[in-house]
Amino acid sequence: MSSYSRKGLCGQVAALPDANDFFSDKAPTPILDMVDTPIHLKNLSIKELKQLAEEIRSEISFIMSKSGPLFKASLAVVELTIAIHYVFNAPVDKILWDIGDQTYAHKILTGRRSLMHTIMQKNGISGFTSRRESEYDAFGAGHGCNSISAGLGMAVARDLKGKKDQVVTVISNWSTMAGQVYEAMGNAGYLDSNMVVILNDSRHSLHPKQEEGVKPTINALSSTLSKLQSSKSFRRFREAAKVVTKRIGKGMHEWAAKFDEFARGMVVPLGATLFEELGLYYIGPVDGTSIEDLICVLNEVASLDSTGPVLIHVITEAEQGLADITNGALNSGLLASPDTISCKLSGTFNDCLVESLIAEAEKDKDIVVVHAGMGIDASLNLFQSKFPERIFDVGMAEQHAVTFAAGLSCGGLKPFCIIPSTFLQRAYDQIIEDVDLQNVPVRFAVTSAGLVGPDGPTKCGAFDIAFMACLPNMIVMAPADEDELISMVGIAANTNDRPVCFRCPGVGSISGIFGPLCSVTPIEVGKGEILVEGRDVALLGYGVMVQNCLKAQSLLAELNIQVTVVNARFCKPLDIELVRKLCREHEFLITVEEGSIGGFGSHVAQFIALDGLLDGRTKWRPIVLPDSYIEHGTLIEQLDTAGLSGHHIAATALRLLGRNREALMLLR
Amino acid sequence: MSSYSRKGLCGQVAALPDANDFFSDKAPTPILDMVDTPIHLKNLSIKELKQLAEEIRSEISFIMSKSGPLFKASLAVVELTIAIHYVFNAPVDKILWDIGDQTYAHKILTGRRSLMHTIMQKNGISGFTSRRESEYDAFGAGHGCNSISAGLGMAVARDLKGKKDQVVTVISNWSTMAGQVYEAMGNAGYLDSNMVVILNDSRHSLHPKQEEGVKPTINALSSTLSKLQSSKSFRRFREAAKVVTKRIGKGMHEWAAKFDEFARGMVVPLGATLFEELGLYYIGPVDGTSIEDLICVLNEVASLDSTGPVLIHVITEAEQGLADITNGALNSGLLASPDTISCKLSGTFNDCLVESLIAEAEKDKDIVVVHAGMGIDASLNLFQSKFPERIFDVGMAEQHAVTFAAGLSCGGLKPFCIIPSTFLQRAYDQIIEDVDLQNVPVRFAVTSAGLVGPDGPTKCGAFDIAFMACLPNMIVMAPADEDELISMVGIAANTNDRPVCFRCPGVGSISGIFGPLCSVTPIEVGKGEILVEGRDVALLGYGVMVQNCLKAQSLLAELNIQVTVVNARFCKPLDIELVRKLCREHEFLITVEEGSIGGFGSHVAQFIALDGLLDGRTKWRPIVLPDSYIEHGTLIEQLDTAGLSGHHIAATALRLLGRNREALMLLR
Repeated sequence: MSSYSRKGLCGQVAALPDANDFFSDKAPTPILDMVDTPIHLKNLSIKELKQLAEEIRSEISFIMSKSGPLFKASLAVVELTIAIHYVFNAPVDKILWDIGDQTYAHKILTGRRSLMHTIMQKNGISGFTSRRESEYDAFGAGHGCNSISAGLGMAVARDLKGKKDQVVTVISNWSTMAGQVYEAMGNAGYLDSNMVVILNDSRHSLHPKQEEGVKPTINALSSTLSKLQSSKSFRRFREAAKVVTKRIGKGMHEWAAKFDEFARGMVVPLGATLFEELGLYYIGPVDGTSIEDLICVLNEVASLDSTGPVLIHVITEAEQGLADITNGALNSGLLASPDTISCKLSGTFNDCLVESLIAEAEKDKDIVVVHAGMGIDASLNLFQSKFPERIFDVGMAEQHAVTFAAGLSCGGLKPFCIIPSTFLQRAYDQIIEDVDLQNVPVRFAVTSAGLVGPDGPTKCGAFDIAFMACLPNMIVMAPADEDELISMVGIAANTNDRPVCFRCPGVGSISGIFGPLCSVTPIEVGKGEILVEGRDVALLGYGVMVQNCLKAQSLLAELNIQVTVVNARFCKPLDIELVRKLCREHEFLITVEEGSIGGFGSHVAQFIALDGLLDGRTKWRPIVLPDSYIEHGTLIEQLDTAGLSGHHIAATALRLLGRNREALMLLR
Repeated sequence: MSSYSRKGLCGQVAALPDANDFFSDKAPTPILDMVDTPIHLKNLSIKELKQLAEEIRSEISFIMSKSGPLFKASLAVVELTIAIHYVFNAPVDKILWDIGDQTYAHKILTGRRSLMHTIMQKNGISGFTSRRESEYDAFGAGHGCNSISAGLGMAVARDLKGKKDQVVTVISNWSTMAGQVYEAMGNAGYLDSNMVVILNDSRHSLHPKQEEGVKPTINALSSTLSKLQSSKSFRRFREAAKVVTKRIGKGMHEWAAKFDEFARGMVVPLGATLFEELGLYYIGPVDGTSIEDLICVLNEVASLDSTGPVLIHVITEAEQGLADITNGALNSGLLASPDTISCKLSGTFNDCLVESLIAEAEKDKDIVVVHAGMGIDASLNLFQSKFPERIFDVGMAEQHAVTFAAGLSCGGLKPFCIIPSTFLQRAYDQIIEDVDLQNVPVRFAVTSAGLVGPDGPTKCGAFDIAFMACLPNMIVMAPADEDELISMVGIAANTNDRPVCFRCPGVGSISGIFGPLCSVTPIEVGKGEILVEGRDVALLGYGVMVQNCLKAQSLLAELNIQVTVVNARFCKPLDIELVRKLCREHEFLITVEEGSIGGFGSHVAQFIALDGLLDGRTKWRPIVLPDSYIEHGTLIEQLDTAGLSGHHIAATALRLLGRNREALMLLR
């Protein structure tokens, strides 16, 4: 989906590239050079629009080859994007996308071309659509599958306010797995406001490596979509067709004739498709590589009155133009650079997670994996190849994933549910009702936890400690490095009386960074570990922040300050003996976590307050993610913004000790 | 859905009714008396099963007339429940329901008949299915729409373990609005494990008061279901029919002949229904009042091998046998009793919310209401009748509701999104990504916040303070009584630069309980209020817990302890000046909230820690909901269990002051 800095904690802060240098060796783009905003498209001929598509594809490919991120999904929708902006009048008309990756052609055509080389970099433009970034971004496309809901809201608001603008929402075939899309389509069908839903069906994107004969999709609906397309059984929507017929009476032009083909197609008696049963008029399938066909259909739909919601099924080609770019980029070494690698190939934490899952699965045949998200994580391929019957990739269906895992557990299996922190938010109710309240042992591997670099706040896993640790039955833990992750996978595998979750950061962290400091004794549930003993300040780190506590300890040692560093490991159950000892032996206790307020620090504070430990000489200071969304950048830049670097931790300790000048020096 | 005690904070703890007294004037039930567990059904004739259905209906009606809760949904599925238990062999076969209300016949038939009169009462049986309560409850039915996901997990686990049991899941037509059901059906269609999904379609239950000619349902799919049923266009699933044909070869008996009617029905070329497109074999519609038809279809489906998932569409009658009971109960005064009233009729907080929404809506035509949940709250009918175009009830589609509200807001309207705390959990990701991160002004009325009495932990709103207050842009507030709720609705209506949420308890609380103590100045964002000034201890209450703080203050005054009581009003932004003042002037600060750890108390603690106030003489004690699920009972009983009564708060203060003996006395 996007790129991560693998340098992580050890990397350098990069300056934004200079636009002139960046674009110096680019192919000429004469048509695109004339297009600053969508209004400049309006007078172009079809021939020029086709050339524009090629130029945009070349532009995106060029940026990809230079800066790494794979904008596959955007390459597939270049023609669609042009057609939408040709026919509709953004920003008056509202264009909503459901996945950031689809929107790069859109960004290029809406005044952000000169900033494309800064994408996902600190102070550069976002990898997603953003209402703050551009008036052409009608809504934020972040987690997918929100566009119909938001678009329906805008359509209803428009009707109530007596306005006449159009609402166009694009959903990808990924999203046809997500429940919210069905909720939204059902409600759109009921409310019957005019809106255009474009299903961007890029058939082969889900499992690119799937072999012939194997089911290519994750759920049955995707199969239905493929069937529709391959059988060329054009469906029609009778009401839409009726309207067209009326228009033909008024004078049929070339578009109307073409549209008629799509809207009439083959007459299917009683043939209510899924979309029609949900109340949307189905039109298609339309060839997404043909600008003429797209403009024809969109033009007609745009000119219809009172159609209610219309769904246009567009077939796009995910791999279009990709091979050349990938080869070029690989040859130039850019895609393989450690700085820029897709999150699908991800970091060591995920590899380590999968390796230890395999090790546990080899010991225990009841261990199974449930995965939810946008396509299976590449690191899971190894598990898939070893235990194809024991892994379930349910796609963008987090709610189902969690309850399904609970069902597997009730059926006697030991499910690990692998969901990124930010997407776990989507299954919060199921975690509470179907897992924690019923005390069903499901093991949550919370991936991409904490800050996630270039993906910015949209994919940031800021809240999981707070929203998981308040659940009564859940064990909540976080490994400080990959070695500890292995142990925690083992603990999870062997916890059969309650649910468990543990964090896996998506970026940063090096295996065994403090290996020599670790004890060799295995991890025990609810037990933390003292790594360094000092008398002046105690640093109680949760998860990978233990590493930054160790950095702070080194910095402070140079200033002759003796620091205790503790790896908490467990937020719940908290190691209360260890916390008591820290309070007894130190005047200052600093808790450090890469998560929001309400998490680890709050649990420590509540315990020491109830235990009376805060009444004595112990002074507690929490270091958490700030109460704001941290914009995209490298992990280093984000940690710096968040005040979670080793320097920040050390500075907090110095200020507590009254050494404010040294604290300031440290942060200079 | 269930009943609440309206006596709330002022009510008395009720003892469980005695079974002998309870059942003394009940009609005879000779067949039911012979049935303790489902195995006793197996040898009954169809005629006896029919009589059993009448006896169970009479039994449920009797319990309803005595103890109040309306088990409508259970009355409609008596025949279906008998047929399921007649054909399948629970607990070896797994029966999963998706709504607690459906399960009372099931409870009666599975060994809990003698406990039915204790339902939803403290130490009585739960209003929902519960894995802890009975081995016949394969999974907890709480929030609806989870049964297919959990059942699929059990089916897959069974297959992996080489077992042969059957999985039967019931979903209601309510649930066809919920996204998770689509995620689950799509995945079930793909995984193709044998399982039976029974769609319990009680057509008229959504909007019972809807008039003829008006759309009777909330989304378009429900309309489709009605259409299916009314047109009698029986759909068939070809594969299922093929298997039946094979069986016919082996010897067709009476059941098979009947089943054939349902499975073959009218041949629909290319007629993929919604369910078929999702990959389920559709059979039906079947008359849910006919035990013969139900047994026939279930028997055949149970005997088929390798069918994959089958969906049986059963039409039930929600109002069946209801009129007599309701009349009876109303005549006896039981349904109108202030002690036992359906949450649909709800408490004063909801009425107050709706009245103030109407007042704001009359002033500002941009104010609209989005409601999600199981049927529109009765208190909203008044809004509906005044502003029918400005209220949107989306059904059990919380994810959509939130993003839809965000879209309405982006379209220039001022949406209030009314969702119970426990169901808000289902839209957490949308609250983060589509509202808070994009800083879209949506106003959340978090209803049924805190403990909810008889509904127990399943519907308890324990976590909303924690999971909302960690979001950077959200204003998080809670009124201490109804008068303050009115002011907060006004604040929400006029906050146009960020999202807002405020809590409305479902139960308890009396209007203006501390009215004379309130200042007459209007509420200001981020400002709390001192209600009583004392010097010994400061009680900082959030929301309705301010009332219990006042009770504690009275108790302590009798012991000559001077207590300050503060109404915090805002968790975010916190009134930091007020908190500073409390810390300066008091040795002891107790925060009190009806919510989990990580909420108001944690926000206060973090502020005073960072401000250095905890380092002085201030000793902070948090009182929150305990780290466990509080079982059903009256609100009074639950508050007592939770340690949140005025007595508990007073006892905490006494212990802080070293007066442990008096604290013990108080709690005796």
